[in-house]
Amino acid sequence: MIRFDSDYIEGCIPEILDALIKSNDEQTIGYGEDPHCENARNLIKKAIGREDAAVHFLVGGTQANVTVICSVLKHHQGAVCADSGHINGHETGALEASGHKCLTIPSTDGTISAAQVDKYINDHYASASFEHTVQPGIVYISFPTESGTLYSKQQLSDLYAVCRKHDIPLFIDGARMGYGLAAADNDMTLADIANLCDVFYIGGTKVGALFGEAVVITNEALKKDFRYHIKQHGGMLAKGRMLGIQFETLFTDDRYLTISKHAIAMAEKLTRGFADKGYAFQYRSETNQLFPIISDEKAAELAENFAYTPWARLDDHHQVIRFVTSFATKEENVDRLIEAL
Amino acid sequence: MIRFDSDYIEGCIPEILDALIKSNDEQTIGYGEDPHCENARNLIKKAIGREDAAVHFLVGGTQANVTVICSVLKHHQGAVCADSGHINGHETGALEASGHKCLTIPSTDGTISAAQVDKYINDHYASASFEHTVQPGIVYISFPTESGTLYSKQQLSDLYAVCRKHDIPLFIDGARMGYGLAAADNDMTLADIANLCDVFYIGGTKVGALFGEAVVITNEALKKDFRYHIKQHGGMLAKGRMLGIQFETLFTDDRYLTISKHAIAMAEKLTRGFADKGYAFQYRSETNQLFPIISDEKAAELAENFAYTPWARLDDHHQVIRFVTSFATKEENVDRLIEAL
Amino acid sequence: MIRFDSDYIEGCIPEILDALIKSNDEQTIGYGEDPHCENARNLIKKAIGREDAAVHFLVGGTQANVTVICSVLKHHQGAVCADSGHINGHETGALEASGHKCLTIPSTDGTISAAQVDKYINDHYASASFEHTVQPGIVYISFPTESGTLYSKQQLSDLYAVCRKHDIPLFIDGARMGYGLAAADNDMTLADIANLCDVFYIGGTKVGALFGEAVVITNEALKKDFRYHIKQHGGMLAKGRMLGIQFETLFTDDRYLTISKHAIAMAEKLTRGFADKGYAFQYRSETNQLFPIISDEKAAELAENFAYTPWARLDDHHQVIRFVTSFATKEENVDRLIEAL
Amino acid sequence: MIRFDSDYIEGCIPEILDALIKSNDEQTIGYGEDPHCENARNLIKKAIGREDAAVHFLVGGTQANVTVICSVLKHHQGAVCADSGHINGHETGALEASGHKCLTIPSTDGTISAAQVDKYINDHYASASFEHTVQPGIVYISFPTESGTLYSKQQLSDLYAVCRKHDIPLFIDGARMGYGLAAADNDMTLADIANLCDVFYIGGTKVGALFGEAVVITNEALKKDFRYHIKQHGGMLAKGRMLGIQFETLFTDDRYLTISKHAIAMAEKLTRGFADKGYAFQYRSETNQLFPIISDEKAAELAENFAYTPWARLDDHHQVIRFVTSFATKEENVDRLIEAL
Repeated sequence: MIRFDSDYIEGCIPEILDALIKSNDEQTIGYGEDPHCENARNLIKKAIGREDAAVHFLVGGTQANVTVICSVLKHHQGAVCADSGHINGHETGALEASGHKCLTIPSTDGTISAAQVDKYINDHYASASFEHTVQPGIVYISFPTESGTLYSKQQLSDLYAVCRKHDIPLFIDGARMGYGLAAADNDMTLADIANLCDVFYIGGTKVGALFGEAVVITNEALKKDFRYHIKQHGGMLAKGRMLGIQFETLFTDDRYLTISKHAIAMAEKLTRGFADKGYAFQYRSETNQLFPIISDEKAAELAENFAYTPWARLDDHHQVIRFVTSFATKEENVDRLIEAL
Repeated sequence: MIRFDSDYIEGCIPEILDALIKSNDEQTIGYGEDPHCENARNLIKKAIGREDAAVHFLVGGTQANVTVICSVLKHHQGAVCADSGHINGHETGALEASGHKCLTIPSTDGTISAAQVDKYINDHYASASFEHTVQPGIVYISFPTESGTLYSKQQLSDLYAVCRKHDIPLFIDGARMGYGLAAADNDMTLADIANLCDVFYIGGTKVGALFGEAVVITNEALKKDFRYHIKQHGGMLAKGRMLGIQFETLFTDDRYLTISKHAIAMAEKLTRGFADKGYAFQYRSETNQLFPIISDEKAAELAENFAYTPWARLDDHHQVIRFVTSFATKEENVDRLIEAL
Repeated sequence: MIRFDSDYIEGCIPEILDALIKSNDEQTIGYGEDPHCENARNLIKKAIGREDAAVHFLVGGTQANVTVICSVLKHHQGAVCADSGHINGHETGALEASGHKCLTIPSTDGTISAAQVDKYINDHYASASFEHTVQPGIVYISFPTESGTLYSKQQLSDLYAVCRKHDIPLFIDGARMGYGLAAADNDMTLADIANLCDVFYIGGTKVGALFGEAVVITNEALKKDFRYHIKQHGGMLAKGRMLGIQFETLFTDDRYLTISKHAIAMAEKLTRGFADKGYAFQYRSETNQLFPIISDEKAAELAENFAYTPWARLDDHHQVIRFVTSFATKEENVDRLIEAL
Repeated sequence: MIRFDSDYIEGCIPEILDALIKSNDEQTIGYGEDPHCENARNLIKKAIGREDAAVHFLVGGTQANVTVICSVLKHHQGAVCADSGHINGHETGALEASGHKCLTIPSTDGTISAAQVDKYINDHYASASFEHTVQPGIVYISFPTESGTLYSKQQLSDLYAVCRKHDIPLFIDGARMGYGLAAADNDMTLADIANLCDVFYIGGTKVGALFGEAVVITNEALKKDFRYHIKQHGGMLAKGRMLGIQFETLFTDDRYLTISKHAIAMAEKLTRGFADKGYAFQYRSETNQLFPIISDEKAAELAENFAYTPWARLDDHHQVIRFVTSFATKEENVDRLIEAL
């Protein structure tokens, strides 16, 4: 079985294993205050060109999402997001379990526009019974989205302008950040991202690490007391250096972008392979996820040798399935899949 | 600086690093459903002699505590625990943030007795306004406790009998389980523990692993839907096999107990070292933590070369400080500390 | 200004004021355990033909909704409801603030069908990643709905059968229960309602009382510990007899239904008045709420003398507005409004 | 049976019933925005000499406590209070159910001192692992306390100074505020109270009303968005005028203080009655609650004709029991009780 069902099916880049071995006998204090975390923080600040940023390392994406949002919101506030947003549909209600409603905006491709968010917030306050509804308190988007799509620099700038107009923080879930940055059509750097939101995170779990997400807070007002929230949400890793060591490695020698580019190259080759065989796609994904439309018969045939994710049913005979590449995808496996199409 | 301030200052046992390297290129599904997790689950079931147990791997202790307790309690219930319990004092209110009160019982050495718990529950229902107070819904203890003390088999049996009498589950936080099992005065096996509670966890973070806690549920009624709770609390690691690989390694060749015994041997040597120099101790810790009483002057002198944890002030000139050994403690470092006393 | 903007703009039926005066000097114990509450409980049990029911009195609707749902759900569960459901859109996220997600089903008229609920629950468990989403734990509907529509006995029977099939409780929000029972097209008695769900409440606030909702639990498994939940949600009124006295009065001499019929008669007269003048309606409301479509010009003209609720914009020149009658609506006011149409 | 077991066993002052009758047919908008609420707000602002205050009417004490505290706190914060505080022991964990821990300070008479609070907060930040514990975010006290005791103006001034020094709001639960103000030894006016805290409430339920608590916010920073919190906690009464009418009545002609004085006079007479018969008291209560020490035999004898609250066991033959007077206590009943002592 060759797996293309997600970008967390392999371990990590070998340089991380080397670093773990090398550091194993070191004695360091815990909870993210060790020299490796400090170094990783500095490397990330340099990469985004923001010495003033606060950088924290958390274990996983759901944890990062709920921790950041809870650190920002008061009890009567909720998170504006796409209806397809990860926090709304794939975190077992972690946000609601922490007291906050997802305020959903319909989305077909995973993105929400500045105009949609502006209207949502204006409508909230225009209602006579606005106090009977949850106040928008943060805007949550993903880059790339759940559908593998991206925001352009213009789109993100517009969205951030709306957020600032309403004095509501913008938070970017970057679980697959590397694959967004490396995409052919992407027109933003990590520094651009950092300057066009209040808080975001750089995904490690899906991009080269064993696990770990680096939360970056650029809005001064949101920095205070963040470590309390990490601890309260179970994210303060005792041997915090595990996270520091991994992000140190990823942000040395431009590795984070380099390995992301590999995943994109593999996705592009696979996309061409599907297109050459005449397959259409549900979304025009620009990143490491492909959503081809396929007959049930062919899907069943592929399933014998290749793992993919069932995504949506189209009609009685066709469905959408998802293939995902990663930093670790081997080109020979891509070739085998293309042959089998 | 030689560190004795906690048992999470080093990496992991080398066999875990070997296993990570060996498995790095494997492709496996995520979220704890891979073959390594399956194998680790089987090894643990075998070690406790309970094929019927449900075993889940979580990342850290705070997460394990809040996940287990929330999976058991309904909204009007709370967790009975020692006032010194980790959930009450060292988790930034994670349990309260999830909606539940810690129902504390005074403890001098970290343990709570069957009689205390029985009285607490009886008193609750004896009150005319019992519905105006939080209903006891689970009993939480640690083995070893925060003070390094242990429950004897008799004490645990008595406590569990009280819990069963009141139909309230007993949960054992085993973040340092190995060091409890390996202690000279301990009279229980892991199988005994498993049979004298409803749910417990076996700590990896402090006992040989990079991170990870193995939650073991032996009460059939508590098994249902547990994975929803893991995901809701951000504990469902995408590359779940990291946890499987580590517990596989720890539960092969009796490593978990072997490495724990090393920590205990180091603690015993250090205890003798202190005692030989005439120091008294605050608690009679039986495990890998020492709580010597020391003059402020001597404490300051030691701090130049040795890291320890300030614990409590005794009088104007004396304090209690904590020294902790671990699976990775080097005997030469123990010797150096003894020399310096 | 003559008000038709809601059914809570007047005080209460005069018999309740008489009862308050008569009982004012009595000394009774608090928290709903006094003789008036006991009597009211018995009158309600008799009215629904269920001596086995548990009856509790709460202050308001939002409180009743969140208290009932929290008493039923565990942390990983949510409430299936119409997207227009009161808990989803008009309670400032009270349910989410208590930890639970609203699992919404699209609805055009406020109702959700047995087939929709069955599909929702089946789809949940059919998903490979079902544990990453909130488990359906209760089904919430309103009778009448927010749009003034009703379930027929057949529809409710079908819905309840689906709930029982999946072993999920059905909860009916009856804030306007009286107006539903009194509607011309309604084919259910209060006893039918009681037998076709697990828990429901009988609204007093909007139907004759100063305030108060009577929660009726018919499912034995849901009765336990309910008073803890009332207290935890701030619903245990110290002078609980205020609630007992009001429901005693409403359930004596069939007053609850009698006063509801008056509101329906007034709504029917008003509906005919609108229809005679050629107005169309957005929903075919069968109860005490009317949703006529009106030109902006006419709406502005009416607003000078009559209070109504803006409901929805239809096009650049037309909107839907809501008129509501109640137990206290004076026929002369209805006549004046009809004249003004 | 003559009841002295609480101050919520009778209805309300007759003037409130008169006002309810007089206003019953009026049509007003709901949710506390009607003219009666507006008038009541103005009367209260005048009574405290603070035109800038925000005044909101809630239904009950538990609701008022949790609503105020949740409006102030962020997720990682808790409420500093006496261990005997109502929020800690008598609200079924309402605060924890909303996500916040009670940070308790030992108290023998129900009060906590400025020095205790200062130490608590200093100790929090002095700890190396302060981020692993809940941050003090509000200080909660009661006036009078659960034990019927009072803060002097000096004590309250000192406490408020400590709160301001640490930039933590001070919140006063005034469920029995009237009885505190009317006490012989009290040296504060309502205006003093208003100026020596950030938010407080004036209890109606126990002091003359059928129900209702008036929350007064004097700290500008805490006023924003408070109505969202009221709605989220189920406290936004649909027929909000019920609360306005009651507080209008209580704050007209100085009634609130007048009726409170009656309760105090009755308590003083009863206290003398007990003292004359040689009884001792557990606390030196200055308000409407008495805590005499009594033999079990005598307690049983009294229980045949008088309702009181069992409070605490002293030894094998003696207990503390509580007698409470109120605005409605009849002197003849006090006389009968004294006779029976």
